[in-house]
Amino acid sequence: MAEENIVYIGNKPVMNYVLAVVTQMNSGTSEVILKARGRAISKAVDVAEIVRNRFITDIKLGTIDISTEEVSNREGSNSNVSAIEIHLNK
Amino acid sequence: MAEENIVYIGNKPVMNYVLAVVTQMNSGTSEVILKARGRAISKAVDVAEIVRNRFITDIKLGTIDISTEEVSNREGSNSNVSAIEIHLNK
Repeated sequence: MAEENIVYIGNKPVMNYVLAVVTQMNSGTSEVILKARGRAISKAVDVAEIVRNRFITDIKLGTIDISTEEVSNREGSNSNVSAIEIHLNK
Repeated sequence: MAEENIVYIGNKPVMNYVLAVVTQMNSGTSEVILKARGRAISKAVDVAEIVRNRFITDIKLGTIDISTEEVSNREGSNSNVSAIEIHLNK
């Protein structure tokens, strides 16, 4: 979908990402996808929950996908990290 | 379902929970549910991914649910914490 918008969850405070989702939704986007890896996965779930409980109560939880991604570290070796994708639809 | 088995993810090492899931699956259970709250959510995703990529490759990812739970802290006040439920089926 050309319309889809992805918010990558990282090290910033939760409310930054909540604001990003709310802003995109209010600009007319019908779907926002939260993506996170490793320890940021918990934060992605927090973002989804805060958005739908406090800000956009008519938002729908879409598919939630988990997967494993391979990342290279500084020494050049690979390690696996879990990832999550949470779809939010209006 | 009477058959369902729940594994609560907490502070122990990831492999403890992986072993718990594998043991339950090998004892003939057809569904195991991983439950985690707060920062343990990332670990629950790790457990699911390690089980299905390395140990029981014919396992299927079922529903993944996220929710908000209210917990009381030591001072008696309530705070909200995100939770996840990951269903694994054989």
